[in-house]
Amino acid sequence: MNNKKIIVIGGSAAGPKAAAKARRLDEFAEITMFQKGNDLSMASCGYPYYVGGTFNDRNMLLTTPAGIVRDPKFYWNAKGIVAKNNTEVTKINRANKTVEFTDLKTGDKASQEYDKLIIATGATANIPPIKGIDLEGITTLQSMQDADFLRKVRDEKKIKKAVVIGGGLIGIETLEALHLAGIKLTLIELLPQLLTFLDFSLAKLVENYLKTKANVITNNGVAEFIGENGHLTAVKLKNGTEIDCELAVIAIGVRPNVKLAKDCGIAIGEIGGIKVNDFMQTNDPDIFAVGDCIEIKNLITNKSVHAPYGDLANLQGRVAGENAIEGNVSSFKGTIQTGICKFFDYAAGTTGISQSKAKEAGFNYQTVINASPDKPGFMNGKMLITELIIDKDNQRILGAQCFGPGDVSKQIAIWASAIQGKLTVEDMINSDFPYAPPFSLAIDHSIATAHVMQNKLKGRFVGITSLELNEKITRNDKVFLLDVRNPDEYEQTRLGLGEILIPLGALRNRLSQLPEDKTTEIVTYCKISLRGYEAAIILKAHGFTNVKVLEGGLSAWIFNKEK
Amino acid sequence: MNNKKIIVIGGSAAGPKAAAKARRLDEFAEITMFQKGNDLSMASCGYPYYVGGTFNDRNMLLTTPAGIVRDPKFYWNAKGIVAKNNTEVTKINRANKTVEFTDLKTGDKASQEYDKLIIATGATANIPPIKGIDLEGITTLQSMQDADFLRKVRDEKKIKKAVVIGGGLIGIETLEALHLAGIKLTLIELLPQLLTFLDFSLAKLVENYLKTKANVITNNGVAEFIGENGHLTAVKLKNGTEIDCELAVIAIGVRPNVKLAKDCGIAIGEIGGIKVNDFMQTNDPDIFAVGDCIEIKNLITNKSVHAPYGDLANLQGRVAGENAIEGNVSSFKGTIQTGICKFFDYAAGTTGISQSKAKEAGFNYQTVINASPDKPGFMNGKMLITELIIDKDNQRILGAQCFGPGDVSKQIAIWASAIQGKLTVEDMINSDFPYAPPFSLAIDHSIATAHVMQNKLKGRFVGITSLELNEKITRNDKVFLLDVRNPDEYEQTRLGLGEILIPLGALRNRLSQLPEDKTTEIVTYCKISLRGYEAAIILKAHGFTNVKVLEGGLSAWIFNKEK
Repeated sequence: MNNKKIIVIGGSAAGPKAAAKARRLDEFAEITMFQKGNDLSMASCGYPYYVGGTFNDRNMLLTTPAGIVRDPKFYWNAKGIVAKNNTEVTKINRANKTVEFTDLKTGDKASQEYDKLIIATGATANIPPIKGIDLEGITTLQSMQDADFLRKVRDEKKIKKAVVIGGGLIGIETLEALHLAGIKLTLIELLPQLLTFLDFSLAKLVENYLKTKANVITNNGVAEFIGENGHLTAVKLKNGTEIDCELAVIAIGVRPNVKLAKDCGIAIGEIGGIKVNDFMQTNDPDIFAVGDCIEIKNLITNKSVHAPYGDLANLQGRVAGENAIEGNVSSFKGTIQTGICKFFDYAAGTTGISQSKAKEAGFNYQTVINASPDKPGFMNGKMLITELIIDKDNQRILGAQCFGPGDVSKQIAIWASAIQGKLTVEDMINSDFPYAPPFSLAIDHSIATAHVMQNKLKGRFVGITSLELNEKITRNDKVFLLDVRNPDEYEQTRLGLGEILIPLGALRNRLSQLPEDKTTEIVTYCKISLRGYEAAIILKAHGFTNVKVLEGGLSAWIFNKEK
Repeated sequence: MNNKKIIVIGGSAAGPKAAAKARRLDEFAEITMFQKGNDLSMASCGYPYYVGGTFNDRNMLLTTPAGIVRDPKFYWNAKGIVAKNNTEVTKINRANKTVEFTDLKTGDKASQEYDKLIIATGATANIPPIKGIDLEGITTLQSMQDADFLRKVRDEKKIKKAVVIGGGLIGIETLEALHLAGIKLTLIELLPQLLTFLDFSLAKLVENYLKTKANVITNNGVAEFIGENGHLTAVKLKNGTEIDCELAVIAIGVRPNVKLAKDCGIAIGEIGGIKVNDFMQTNDPDIFAVGDCIEIKNLITNKSVHAPYGDLANLQGRVAGENAIEGNVSSFKGTIQTGICKFFDYAAGTTGISQSKAKEAGFNYQTVINASPDKPGFMNGKMLITELIIDKDNQRILGAQCFGPGDVSKQIAIWASAIQGKLTVEDMINSDFPYAPPFSLAIDHSIATAHVMQNKLKGRFVGITSLELNEKITRNDKVFLLDVRNPDEYEQTRLGLGEILIPLGALRNRLSQLPEDKTTEIVTYCKISLRGYEAAIILKAHGFTNVKVLEGGLSAWIFNKEK
């Protein structure tokens, strides 16, 4: 029997993983990996941290943990894989199972046979087709070359002002990187909010925090790039505002590279990615596709999504590599679209679906926003604010979003596991997580969030978000605001919207200060609304019939405060 | 209707939580909480960090996050709870539903009626009944008074040498605290290993690390405390060794305080804790018990266990408080015995059951040890070593243990969720966790561990632990050791057990250096045994029939190394 011939198109993330997995399952398969660019298996998610100076050795993006550069020599010696870099695959011939390719250095063309082909052609950054786009000083942060360019910007310290266009993950990571380089920044987002995987309330918390570091403009796009002598000098926004800058980084998403696949009749899905089944097979059973060039299933909504994340690319590559060798023995079923973004000392993450997606998908959902620290105060605990979304019909977790300076990553990992295990709110109530003061509160933030949700479902906790409350206030609805913190807390920070301060400990004796009309809408709160919740209970017990708790308290308030 | 009368005995963790939850569900219940000591709702898990100087304000252990001391005045004003501290409940009269109590300051005795009684009497530290136990300088770290005493030791800087007796969670946390106080320490453990919730291999890694900070003695107990003028001067071990010290902290576990309950005929369980059902009810339906005084069910083995952890105490308290007011509407089903322990820059954690417990319980289990960093090298990733235990019959996760300087807490939380969701190895293979370089590798350590387990189950990965390999070497079995790292790595650290170094990248060309007899047992390894695994695959493909991979590589090696 002849050795199996495996060709992988793409050498960044999913491709190398597929090739390596195939090799591990068949020492004698002939495996060739084509890469259009020079670099192989780049740690591309690390670009912002190289640009920002978290580390200075460029090679760390290109080497194994043992310090070996992942070049064709490495691939051949350590993995037995022929890695052809600087080589572009130009055509897939499905009939005779070959690919045609061009050596980009010599211009030589050739073709090669495959038994199984794995397409991992990645995605390309979207570039807006607007005036001035070709000016010098406009870039993306998608390639090693982009990273080198921006790192040079950092090191040379010549550029003083920059804009980042796009308030998604990459945009925000780039914002941090350039801020750390000492550059004055403006972030421009076309939509009303940053990080669209978050619901508005949490996205607004992110925006408020980022505004302490940079100028942040939402609801506005770039109309034109303005330059002098071929160099960028400003961007002009759709509303006419001009922002001086010498550098613009475009981060408005990516689109799957599907041309090679499409040209040979491989099916493209409804949202423009290569269509694959759970085995990572395209409509041609001998051709697999993995990574940023495909679309996959959201496991909660069953809808197709484009999820260009490095972790999923690796998992898909592993499955395709296995199936290419052993037949379809392994499957990748889809994503719950877990993601996380660090910015300075804060992070925001998500798993499952947002409130707006739940609405769109027709779920009978319930949400709650909860705030509490990740650890005790004496261990320097830091705040976490979580929005939890559940399915009221079966109480299952649909999604969770978390923001704050606390340990967001652990929270999101917990909720991701909970979604995968189809856990309900009741299941989460008594979860048994690792507790010790250096790691969590006695009742972990995730469990506390489940408790608040349970209280809400049982009708004990009637919540109102800051978004909802602000609407009422803007409409001049009659709302009695009751802050139940201590006077010293009130001196430090407060809404200043006409609220009354009655510390929780004094509330039972000062009920006479509350509205005579017991049907008046009252909103209670404190820093995180635990005391606010206790206050609401007291008021209800004393006959007040329309008492709500401000969800997440002042910690989750997204609008201006008096101080 | 009269107001409901609730009595809670115990004011430390589970008691206050039960009382507070009852109050939130019934504003007019008459709730009294008795506490024998002076302090209420102490953050007792924080004692080691106060002693060690992580924080210096003692009040942080006794106040709310808003800075209010949790004294009887606070309980009355904020919670509407009568907290009687310095008051000992001496008897429960079930027939007439009263408790008798003594004011420890005045000696006054009285009794009080209850409709529902919640027992949260906690646990008492075990003290060995050995000679010299009454010498000055011998303490536990169980109470605020103990914490004050040890903090004074830190602040006065007089004591130079101390021993900690007991290598469990508290013992190790105390060791760190006293080490940070500049004291020279010896840790003494009667059993062959520290942290018995870990299997031997991981416990040994903990021990090896702690030996860089202190003298650690296992397999040896204290026979006698030696003193002069009533002051401790040394401990004498069972093997006759004497260790000079001026301070000894005993941390050999706790036993449930059940006397009050037992005396009134409340059923005690098989392992000596108060017996409760899922509603936290004792055999008297009007009496609940919660916290360290009860025994609960291990949800994996269904056996009774004593799990005196602050997080479970709070969850149980919440359930009992709810059921005392609303009837049995809420339940606490048991524990998967999740726990974690920090020591200096390292941590060790566990969830589910260990290999030894799985064996004991008759499971058809499989284990694997896996090592990988928590984050990329360029983000200063730190090592994690996990032992995963699964049920071979259904591939479900039975338990996981994790050790290292990396983010152990997140790993254990992930596995705890996986166990709760009854996830299998296959489920974990493609988990969708929050990935970005500041938080994890593209393939998170937990997922990588599942991958190795899958490879093991599919027969691709044949592992051998360092414990098993060391046995073979000690028996003089013929084992060919193949280190596949690079020469510079070999120069830095190596076993020095006669191994051959052939870097992975050179292996295919140097197969002739391997034993001629292809049935020779060969063990391959590298730093973490990823390259070791690839080497094993190459060897098997070339006809070697008895190739094993050293699980976790050198990172999980628990014995001496040449360098």
